[in-house]
Amino acid sequence: MELPVYLDHNATTPLAPGVLDTMVAYLGTQFGNPSSSHQYGQAPRQAVATARTQLAHLLGARPQEIVFTGCGSEANTLAINGTTAGRTGHVITQATEHPAVLETCRALTRHDLRLTVLPVDEYGLVRAADLAAALTPDTILVTVMHANNETGTIQPIAELAALTHRAGALLHTDAAQSVGKIPFVVDELGADLLTVAGHKFGGPKGVGALYIRDGLTVQPLIRGGGQEHGLRSGTENVAGIAGLGAAAQQATTTGGHTHVTELRDQLHRLLMTALGDRVALNGHLEQRLPNTLNISIEGTVGAQLLAQVPQLAASTGSACHDGSISSPVLAAMGLDVQRAAGAIRLSLGASTTETDIRHVADLLTDAAGGGRR
Amino acid sequence: MELPVYLDHNATTPLAPGVLDTMVAYLGTQFGNPSSSHQYGQAPRQAVATARTQLAHLLGARPQEIVFTGCGSEANTLAINGTTAGRTGHVITQATEHPAVLETCRALTRHDLRLTVLPVDEYGLVRAADLAAALTPDTILVTVMHANNETGTIQPIAELAALTHRAGALLHTDAAQSVGKIPFVVDELGADLLTVAGHKFGGPKGVGALYIRDGLTVQPLIRGGGQEHGLRSGTENVAGIAGLGAAAQQATTTGGHTHVTELRDQLHRLLMTALGDRVALNGHLEQRLPNTLNISIEGTVGAQLLAQVPQLAASTGSACHDGSISSPVLAAMGLDVQRAAGAIRLSLGASTTETDIRHVADLLTDAAGGGRR
Repeated sequence: MELPVYLDHNATTPLAPGVLDTMVAYLGTQFGNPSSSHQYGQAPRQAVATARTQLAHLLGARPQEIVFTGCGSEANTLAINGTTAGRTGHVITQATEHPAVLETCRALTRHDLRLTVLPVDEYGLVRAADLAAALTPDTILVTVMHANNETGTIQPIAELAALTHRAGALLHTDAAQSVGKIPFVVDELGADLLTVAGHKFGGPKGVGALYIRDGLTVQPLIRGGGQEHGLRSGTENVAGIAGLGAAAQQATTTGGHTHVTELRDQLHRLLMTALGDRVALNGHLEQRLPNTLNISIEGTVGAQLLAQVPQLAASTGSACHDGSISSPVLAAMGLDVQRAAGAIRLSLGASTTETDIRHVADLLTDAAGGGRR
Repeated sequence: MELPVYLDHNATTPLAPGVLDTMVAYLGTQFGNPSSSHQYGQAPRQAVATARTQLAHLLGARPQEIVFTGCGSEANTLAINGTTAGRTGHVITQATEHPAVLETCRALTRHDLRLTVLPVDEYGLVRAADLAAALTPDTILVTVMHANNETGTIQPIAELAALTHRAGALLHTDAAQSVGKIPFVVDELGADLLTVAGHKFGGPKGVGALYIRDGLTVQPLIRGGGQEHGLRSGTENVAGIAGLGAAAQQATTTGGHTHVTELRDQLHRLLMTALGDRVALNGHLEQRLPNTLNISIEGTVGAQLLAQVPQLAASTGSACHDGSISSPVLAAMGLDVQRAAGAIRLSLGASTTETDIRHVADLLTDAAGGGRR
């Protein structure tokens, strides 16, 4: 049986070309522990250093500002817990965050920390005025994602960071969905801490990173052998880190994905042409990841629609929540229950072709009872 | 240049045969997210389930008692923080623990928890009487490693667990060094929580696991998507987990490493024959990992000796601490500074040969200024 067309790159991506070869070296003869002072430690130690430079380069950061972690969720936890541990005060987040941020922030309230969860507008955007009103003199941290995993909506981080800094607080942004998809530089973004997830942009699962601005003090989540400048102990996942580095290197070289944007918009147009105003876009039309199309087709239920089309691999929302009925992200945007239940997320990747797009448009049109049927 | 003989398996091991092939499948076409409900999620989801069963089988546990983590240090942190979070009371550990346990326990004292660090005897063994005396009605957790990373000394966990349970507390054991090296069953050991590190027994770096006895409540360290029964969120490191499972499967099949024990003891005999009573064993002669030989050669400094013999890859202690001068483990055993500074750790593995052993014995004898020179 032919494999379904994969339009679920926001859930996870295949490895970018060459990443596997990079990894396999450190799963083979160069298996040593980077902390070993003998010869077996040298190549792995160098691999971790190279990857650190590669990722720093992609983010416009310095290598010493990168801490490798076991996944993006761990990086989020390190950022949030690591800047607030042992302190009292106030933390601000917003309603459409990934649960790794939202649940971690909610857990803080057990530790003498107050939490404000900002609302979003109908496109999923945080309003700067809402943040300005929420900031207090004891606000420690503002954590707002760079791009949303379900809708692709890109938050105005630079503007939010400026407000945050004026109030004397730190800004963390979960950039798991934007790294490698849109080019940016941490300094222009204004982020003090920024989360990276390897498997969202052609790197392997099981490795993430946290950018921590030079000079910032963060408490470690995992203590012990003192790896990663003491901020993340545990023997380094050398192959995974090298793979993430190789993916970062490629993302730096290729820059944006203009062909992905074109294909994404072509898919949108094909569906609009076939189904007319039954197609509603969820999220912001322009301030959006180049690969993400989240739509609701009137008269359909997303999960049922996808079940009718096994030739397409996509999702109704976050992969983590594939079992749940409706998306808290779309609810926070004020979408009514019917429209939210109709949502499907089509997320493209580097290997997506025009043939895929035409095929998917036909399949969805037929399943939704429109077009040539 | 020929590669040095690798006798540093307690720092990290090469992948066991077949493990790489298992991993590569999930780094290639079967790259999907295990949480995805479409076809790409199926094989990865099955791979994680298979690995869970394989590891459970090795430990004599049930699959639902296994939580996969990003490394052994994370598993230790999950065990220690997860059972004590939000509670007041008392925690007991012992002096020769890995820093991932020791530092994590020390950090607990910031949270209204008292800590007792038990001493060890000259072989590195915890005395049951010391534990009995330290247990109090409010002791929540006792964490004592199964086998020491530097000396290989195996603690009397079953006896310590019985005392711990009689006092109404939980027993956690860091079994990073024993899993796959000596056969055991969690129920006989009496552990309520047990740490596994993949790369110490032929699995990959970047993946660990925590055994949590059925019915025990543990607070997660990393929250979010709800993976691993909600105890460790973050997209699963499918390839790493599958690799750990494959290594566990092999360890179950091969059982102990009798040839490793023979080679280890042969190395010890060769050095004793050549250098006589200048060779002192650090750790317990019998209650010891089958692959570990930690010795001090009188009149030598470990780091200098190893530097003289680049044809041998070994260490003076834990890889994490390769930079530091003396071992806290040996100090806790009451070894004098000279003997502790003389320590070298020779840790064998499945691929170690008799030729390796004879070669290393000659090299060390020559470098120590003994034998045929």
